[in-house]
Order: sequence, then structure tokens, then C-alpha cells
Amino acid sequence: MNLTQFNLALVEIREDRTHGASELARRCLLILAEAARAEPAGSVVELQKRLSALSAELAQTRPSMAPVQNLLRRWREALTFAEEADLATARRMAVERAEVLIAASRQAVLDCAVRAADLLGCGRTVMTHSLSSTVVEVCRLLGGQGLRMIITESRPLMEGRRLAEQLSIWGTPTTFITDAQMGLFVAEADAVLVGADSVLADGAVVNKTGTGLLALAARDRGVPFYVCCESFKWRAPGQPPPELEEMAPAELETPDWPGVTVRNVYFDLTPGRLVSAWIDETGVRWPETGP
Amino acid sequence: MNLTQFNLALVEIREDRTHGASELARRCLLILAEAARAEPAGSVVELQKRLSALSAELAQTRPSMAPVQNLLRRWREALTFAEEADLATARRMAVERAEVLIAASRQAVLDCAVRAADLLGCGRTVMTHSLSSTVVEVCRLLGGQGLRMIITESRPLMEGRRLAEQLSIWGTPTTFITDAQMGLFVAEADAVLVGADSVLADGAVVNKTGTGLLALAARDRGVPFYVCCESFKWRAPGQPPPELEEMAPAELETPDWPGVTVRNVYFDLTPGRLVSAWIDETGVRWPETGP
Repeated sequence: MNLTQFNLALVEIREDRTHGASELARRCLLILAEAARAEPAGSVVELQKRLSALSAELAQTRPSMAPVQNLLRRWREALTFAEEADLATARRMAVERAEVLIAASRQAVLDCAVRAADLLGCGRTVMTHSLSSTVVEVCRLLGGQGLRMIITESRPLMEGRRLAEQLSIWGTPTTFITDAQMGLFVAEADAVLVGADSVLADGAVVNKTGTGLLALAARDRGVPFYVCCESFKWRAPGQPPPELEEMAPAELETPDWPGVTVRNVYFDLTPGRLVSAWIDETGVRWPETGP
Repeated sequence: MNLTQFNLALVEIREDRTHGASELARRCLLILAEAARAEPAGSVVELQKRLSALSAELAQTRPSMAPVQNLLRRWREALTFAEEADLATARRMAVERAEVLIAASRQAVLDCAVRAADLLGCGRTVMTHSLSSTVVEVCRLLGGQGLRMIITESRPLMEGRRLAEQLSIWGTPTTFITDAQMGLFVAEADAVLVGADSVLADGAVVNKTGTGLLALAARDRGVPFYVCCESFKWRAPGQPPPELEEMAPAELETPDWPGVTVRNVYFDLTPGRLVSAWIDETGVRWPETGP
């Protein structure tokens, strides 16, 4: 992977609108594994320095997505080699470390979905917003067990349509609504379940814009609001809240109105006080015991 | 106006997606004025009976819109003629009564907007949802006085785009967002101002779907939430909450997914407890003194 290829990969990660935070973090690790194989270096120390720099650059592409930062930091931290290690060994270890983290991330998502499915149980009506790969996995686990879903279209890019398509294929009875109807339909749900791009140390949740409104509506109607994501998505205490990424206004496909500013902030921050429980691969955290 | 024409007019009113409740109520009165001129009748009593029936039919076209019911009921109540009245006089009086009510409705909207503009004052940032002709009038009154607007696109039919276009023409600095971003941007507003299709006797507000979410977000952020509509929109005590009209799912322009039900409920009900004040043509009602 030369510099041009790496820079192309950076742009792809930055502009990706179809994959969630965990998937993008794993893509970053794949890119780094490729760099570990091919990045020119005259010594182990030089390799380590160059890979660290690439990793840091990748980590900055998606500030709203904690797993991108967390998994890449873990990978960087593992780039310490024994003094006697030769370049080939160092490269192999860096690749292996990326593969281990990719597998750990995948497993964490699956374990997390199992915990969420356990908590929800059979025969429930579950509402979600946008498209979370963890929530999709929960739907797969609970499909055929009386699960009913209420899902939002999720403007502007309509991620909800991809979820609708999947649920249709699985035969899960689904109600599909505009984002603005969330307040009307939340009362029909036994629970709300959303994924997250990041969870702050105080339990606040960064997720697709509109999640905060759904949390308010759920609280107002006494419906539990669960956040389901693997622990790689938690930000360390002391880390500042992430910048909420803003995407191109063109995604709203409006005419050009002089004096009108079109905004397209892609993520919002749901305060921890609106979360009924956080579910990760290790279990369920209730507000009494955490976060 | 023969029966075919009247039935066409009924369908037009029922399917109208571009006019607000007050405008549609005035259109209904115009249709009835036309019927008063031309409806076949052999006697004053027969005319009265036939016009009453047409009016009752029209009133049922838009159950979410109180002014349609209220103005048409007022018109029906005025269809009592002196025993000696001839058919021509009765027709003229019925037409005049419709004209008086149309003028009263227009004036009430204007007076209401003046009250709202007074309450808001100059130099404010005001957020709204969907498109209310009363709110448009408030924007006209406060334009050039430092007004800034935050407006939503209002899926599925994007009424917010028409508001953006008007504000752009007036040179009012405006931020245009998706409905899902309401929770993010409400904190930047000094106040929320929405119109209504109906207000229930307990102060609950029927308005374009998403209004309830905006009210929750405004309350959560401590931003006042004002409802601005003329008194023709208030429903009498004892009247049941109106059916919340549902429109064609096709308006969401989704593919056909087997097992997925697309819903398009056009109105929601914001409970009175989330309203900071109700503004009508007579003044401002605060929760302490009413509704």
C-alpha cells in the first residue's frame, strides 16, 4: 500500500455512509494490516513509527465513532516489539494483532446482540432508529420468535430502508414510519433498542441524529430505552465529547435558497439520564450500578 | 353547483395537502356560498335542509381540522330564516353569512399573528415545524427586525421547503434541517412557535406529525413552546379528540416490502402540559390562567 492508496482509503473511510462504527473500525484495521505488510521501512523502529502515524491518521477520520479510535489505539499500543525482533517478524505480529482485534470486535458485536436478545425476550414489539448492525443481529436472533419491529426511515440517507428490506426478507412483521412519527408510534413498543457510534463515560450516547428525540419520546411514554453496543464503543473517562460529524448539505437535496443555511448534522448526543440500560458483550448495566 | 361538482369539491378538500386548516375551512365556506346560490330548492325550508346536509358532509372531510368543523357549524347555525323570507333572500343571506365568516377567519389569523409577534419581540431566533400560515404571517411581521428562523423539512411532503422559499424571498436568515435534527437545534432557539390544526379544550394541540417531538425537545432544553392559532381552531369542551388523519403510504415513496406496513399518520397530539402559552386573536393564555 503506497501513500496514494492509503490516502484513497482514508477518504473512503471518511466519506463512508453505509457502514456502522464497528464495521468501519474493522476496515481501518484491515487497511493497517495491509500497511504492516507493505509499508517501506528500514528497521523495526521505523516500521513502528510509520504504522503508528498511519493509525493515528485513520483514527481521526471519524471523530463520532469511538471504536475507530479505541481499536486503532489498542493496535498502536501493541506495536512494541522485542529488541531482537526482525522486520519480517514485526510485520507479521502487526498483521496478526490487527486480525485478533477484528475477530474480537466481531465477537463482541455478536455477544452483545445475544445479551440484548436475552433482555428483550420473545414476542416483543421493539422500536429502533436508523440502522445498527448490532440491532440487525438482535432481529436475526429474535426473528421467528414473535418479534415485531417499528423502524424509522432515517433521513436524509434512509438507512431505515435497508433495515426494512432485511426484516422483510426475514419475515419479521414491521411498521415503517417517517422520523417525525417516532412520538406517535413509540407508545406501541415494548422497548426501544438502538445501537451507538460512541458511548461517553457518563453514559451519554452518540448515535444517528434523531436518537435523542426517540429517547425523549420513550421516556415520556414510559417505554424502556436500551442502548446496545460492544465495549469498544465506550469512550474513556476524561475524554471530551466527540465532535458530532456534519455531512454535506447536498444530502438533503434542497434547491439553493439565498439566505437559507441547510444543516446536516449526522449524530446527536442522548444524555445518559434518558437511557434505561446499556447492553454490551459483558452484560447489562442499569443506571443504579453505572455507567 | 350540481352534485357531481360538489362531490369533486369534497374530494379536493379531503385530499388537499397544500393548504392549512384555516384556508381549507374558508374554501369550504366558498363552496357552500356557491351551493347557496345554485342548489335546487322549492322552498326556503328545503334550501335550508339541503345546505345543512352539504355543510355537514363537508365538515367531515378533515376530522383533524377544527376550523373546518367550527366555521361550518357556525354557518349552519345561521341558516335560520324569518318565516316570511323568500328563496332569493334566503340564498343571499346564506352567501353573505359565508362571506362574513371568511372575513372573520382571515382577520382572526392576522390578529393572532400580531399577538404572537408582540409576544416574541424583535431580534429572536424562532424555531417552527411544518408550514403554518399564521407562523408565515408572524415571520412577515417580524422580518427585517432581526428575526432568525430554524425550520424543518417536514417529511413526507416537505412543507418546510415552501417556508424556506418564502423566508429566502423575504431575506430572513434561516437554518433548514431534517425533522430528526429538531432535538439538536432547538437549543439554539429563543422560542418555538407552531400553528395548529385543532386545539382541544384541555389545551392539547393537533398539528403536523413531529410537533409533539419538538415540544418534548423544547421542554427538555427549557425553550418556550408557543402555539399560535385563531380561536376557530379550539374544540369545544366535551368534544372527543379528533381522529388523527392518516394519508397514503405512497407519499413515503418506499419500495413494496412484503410484511412491512408503511404508516403515514399526518398529525400528532401534543399534550397541553408541554405548551408554554396559547396565542389567539384575543391574546395570550398562559397555563396558570387556562386553557
